[in-house]
Amino acid sequence: MKFQGSHILSVSQFDRDAISRILEVSARMAPYAARKKRCHVLDGAILNNLFFEPSTRTRVSFGTAFNLLGGFVRETVGQENSSLSKGESLFDTAQVLSGYSDVIAMRHPQIHSVAEFAKGSTVPVINGGDGANEHPTQALLDLFTIKSEMAPYGKDLDGLDIVLMGDLKHGRTVHSLSKLLSLHKNLKVTLVSPTALQMPDSIVSTLSDAGHRVEITDELGDNLACDVIYQTRIQQERFADKAEAELYRGHFSLNKEVYQKYCKENTVIMHPLPRDSRPEANELDVDLDGLHNLAIFRQAQNGVLVRMALFALTLGVEDKLSEFEQPVHWYTNKN
Amino acid sequence: MKFQGSHILSVSQFDRDAISRILEVSARMAPYAARKKRCHVLDGAILNNLFFEPSTRTRVSFGTAFNLLGGFVRETVGQENSSLSKGESLFDTAQVLSGYSDVIAMRHPQIHSVAEFAKGSTVPVINGGDGANEHPTQALLDLFTIKSEMAPYGKDLDGLDIVLMGDLKHGRTVHSLSKLLSLHKNLKVTLVSPTALQMPDSIVSTLSDAGHRVEITDELGDNLACDVIYQTRIQQERFADKAEAELYRGHFSLNKEVYQKYCKENTVIMHPLPRDSRPEANELDVDLDGLHNLAIFRQAQNGVLVRMALFALTLGVEDKLSEFEQPVHWYTNKN
Amino acid sequence: MKFQGSHILSVSQFDRDAISRILEVSARMAPYAARKKRCHVLDGAILNNLFFEPSTRTRVSFGTAFNLLGGFVRETVGQENSSLSKGESLFDTAQVLSGYSDVIAMRHPQIHSVAEFAKGSTVPVINGGDGANEHPTQALLDLFTIKSEMAPYGKDLDGLDIVLMGDLKHGRTVHSLSKLLSLHKNLKVTLVSPTALQMPDSIVSTLSDAGHRVEITDELGDNLACDVIYQTRIQQERFADKAEAELYRGHFSLNKEVYQKYCKENTVIMHPLPRDSRPEANELDVDLDGLHNLAIFRQAQNGVLVRMALFALTLGVEDKLSEFEQPVHWYTNKN
Repeated sequence: MKFQGSHILSVSQFDRDAISRILEVSARMAPYAARKKRCHVLDGAILNNLFFEPSTRTRVSFGTAFNLLGGFVRETVGQENSSLSKGESLFDTAQVLSGYSDVIAMRHPQIHSVAEFAKGSTVPVINGGDGANEHPTQALLDLFTIKSEMAPYGKDLDGLDIVLMGDLKHGRTVHSLSKLLSLHKNLKVTLVSPTALQMPDSIVSTLSDAGHRVEITDELGDNLACDVIYQTRIQQERFADKAEAELYRGHFSLNKEVYQKYCKENTVIMHPLPRDSRPEANELDVDLDGLHNLAIFRQAQNGVLVRMALFALTLGVEDKLSEFEQPVHWYTNKN
Repeated sequence: MKFQGSHILSVSQFDRDAISRILEVSARMAPYAARKKRCHVLDGAILNNLFFEPSTRTRVSFGTAFNLLGGFVRETVGQENSSLSKGESLFDTAQVLSGYSDVIAMRHPQIHSVAEFAKGSTVPVINGGDGANEHPTQALLDLFTIKSEMAPYGKDLDGLDIVLMGDLKHGRTVHSLSKLLSLHKNLKVTLVSPTALQMPDSIVSTLSDAGHRVEITDELGDNLACDVIYQTRIQQERFADKAEAELYRGHFSLNKEVYQKYCKENTVIMHPLPRDSRPEANELDVDLDGLHNLAIFRQAQNGVLVRMALFALTLGVEDKLSEFEQPVHWYTNKN
Repeated sequence: MKFQGSHILSVSQFDRDAISRILEVSARMAPYAARKKRCHVLDGAILNNLFFEPSTRTRVSFGTAFNLLGGFVRETVGQENSSLSKGESLFDTAQVLSGYSDVIAMRHPQIHSVAEFAKGSTVPVINGGDGANEHPTQALLDLFTIKSEMAPYGKDLDGLDIVLMGDLKHGRTVHSLSKLLSLHKNLKVTLVSPTALQMPDSIVSTLSDAGHRVEITDELGDNLACDVIYQTRIQQERFADKAEAELYRGHFSLNKEVYQKYCKENTVIMHPLPRDSRPEANELDVDLDGLHNLAIFRQAQNGVLVRMALFALTLGVEDKLSEFEQPVHWYTNKN
């Protein structure tokens, strides 16, 4: 696909080549995110960061990504006293706000709202989450993380053994990630969840149709001796009845004991964050925090790389980065 | 007037020369807003964008304008847990916040609050709207839009045939625009509104005293065969009784049928936005959206030019722009 | 102490040398804050300005300070729909958000929350206020103000006669300032407050142990013939019973009459602001506004200098400022 001038609305818009391109450009961003050098290719450009639904982490990540390329960020959080609440259409809002910007990142609580907005926008729009529908940059950073965590072991995306675990029914992130995995080859995908919170059939089919081996279970066991476990949270209120919630309480928690009992030496653990550290949730115990293969914080950092890549690609500067490099003058311990 | 170091508080502070100067400097900003070049004359300067009353569009427009000249934007939205709510005077707030800034844009729900604040400010303050009182940058962008929309037809502001329509009693924008029109010559101004929502006598006098032909009516008809129609919204709750609201419901809607029946081929349609697209309001139908002379989105974009001009003028850099130009490196389809 | 890479969490972490260093670097920032020159040593660096508890003045001051060194600011105000409210630990939040930033300024309503956050942060964290606990940058700007206000009289911090006045029991600022004063020599410190709102014993001891002469009183009188009066507000609701509140109402107000009756010609008046200008409060009357020695607004401006200094020190650029200077091109009346 041609990225320049395009909207990024859904993982479904990408073929494997497009995905490879995004991951490759994301990797180029690492030295800037690590402050080894800085890049100011977008000096003077303006991101309009529209978070009609608040989300500190995602909002700051988009803004940071744009700043790391040199650009300015204008920002809106929540509905404020917004024109949308005065009956203005998303089309009109988009016509006006896109006129002020070079690119827009947008989160909105309503399904399909970002695509609707994009129709009225004169600049590229990147979907930062539209309700239960899509959050494509999360799926892309997840895929980038799997790829980069596997690299030290000489593995690429094809052929991996991946476990998706937790609430697979409502988890937007595991749905989108599954779609991206379906563009790759020869995976083993194990879906571990309570019966009531199983992966939707359509997503299972997408994985099967891609030729992957799919296993569905509600048991933790040797299936955890895999390359990557992608854990998500299970909210108790998702269960239809209390009995089932009780049945599964604590059953899908990952902790050091479970890890040592079932996982391989190098099994990577991922989680979209935030993880709920309250005792009643605790889907991912802090006793794993010292583990090198706990990739959750690197995963969050990769969000900056992927968002930098999408800005660079949609604004057509992905091959000009090195022309606009500068040394970093201040203290940093990043790497 | 001398702009450098001055506050911009009210349309009443300008004479015709000042207005001409603002419009002329606004026009110089077009290549930067269109990303043909970028300008960084205000590199390192700081705008304090104080929106004690939220307004996404106006706030983002001010911030964008400042970024397009190279400057940084610090921003406040809503009353937060602000000092004002702890009994601090606007004078004190201004003393402190202006000390952090090079220029301030401010919106506040209270009438005259911005002028009060300006007394304590050590830097230029631009009024972004103080309740029902003034919103001078809106009036200036409206005037700039009329001028630029008329230019292709070889017309300037003098001598135009202009219709102001909708709620002329409460519409802050049409009051301020009328004051600016009164600085020009030989206009025909038709005021179309429900009887209960007529233009205040003082504004009518201002227009008459300037020598303009003023006509007051509650009928749409051949009077729409004009150069410019400036439509505003009518909120049903503005009527004293329900019977009158019913009488006029839908009566002042502009749509394709009305346009084709009454307007000239090139009649320009303006609206301060947001337009209410809900069926019960619909003062400006989306069936006009394809019409080239529907200027509403260009009008919104002109807000950036006018605000850039006011920043440049109050900070005394309006004649240094070309010294600080750079090429734009990223993809854009603006023009 | 070594500032580079360090957190700034409490006034208690500093010895006298560290304080001198901060004040000295703060003084270097004056020409940039006064727009005589601009400095862009932090071009491309990112401050994450996390105000989980809103505070317009402090937030804008931190952001301004970072912009004045050339850096970008990403900002969060209030709890939004934040991860913290979804059960995420401060450690996790810090791991993620610090990964996006070069330095963090943080305010949070909970005591010790900022120190807790700092444990998870990979970049320096500056405490912008953690509930009733600490607000170290306020204490530093207060000390800087005393020093700079005394300089024209040939005095330094040692040997001064200082009055702290108002609610000394709950006033976080006077507690922290007292700790910093205890690092200096031969002060006379007069503590003027209602009996019910006296300075805590631990703070009085800190001052006494440093060898200062401490006097405790509930009377205004010749004790005001001092070098500096630091006034704070007294909120009526702080009193245990209404009778005592009545007894002291208006008793600790500073105004022109009190100043002329008791103060020296050059007694400097400070206040952490905001001052409550409502008649029922009025701890510092506006009839003093013309007085040259009313330092309250200079004091607020000094907050920018001190915050610039802390950014420069923690990021290790305090000796590179002059390499990154540029002329200021725009109009300014600061000095």
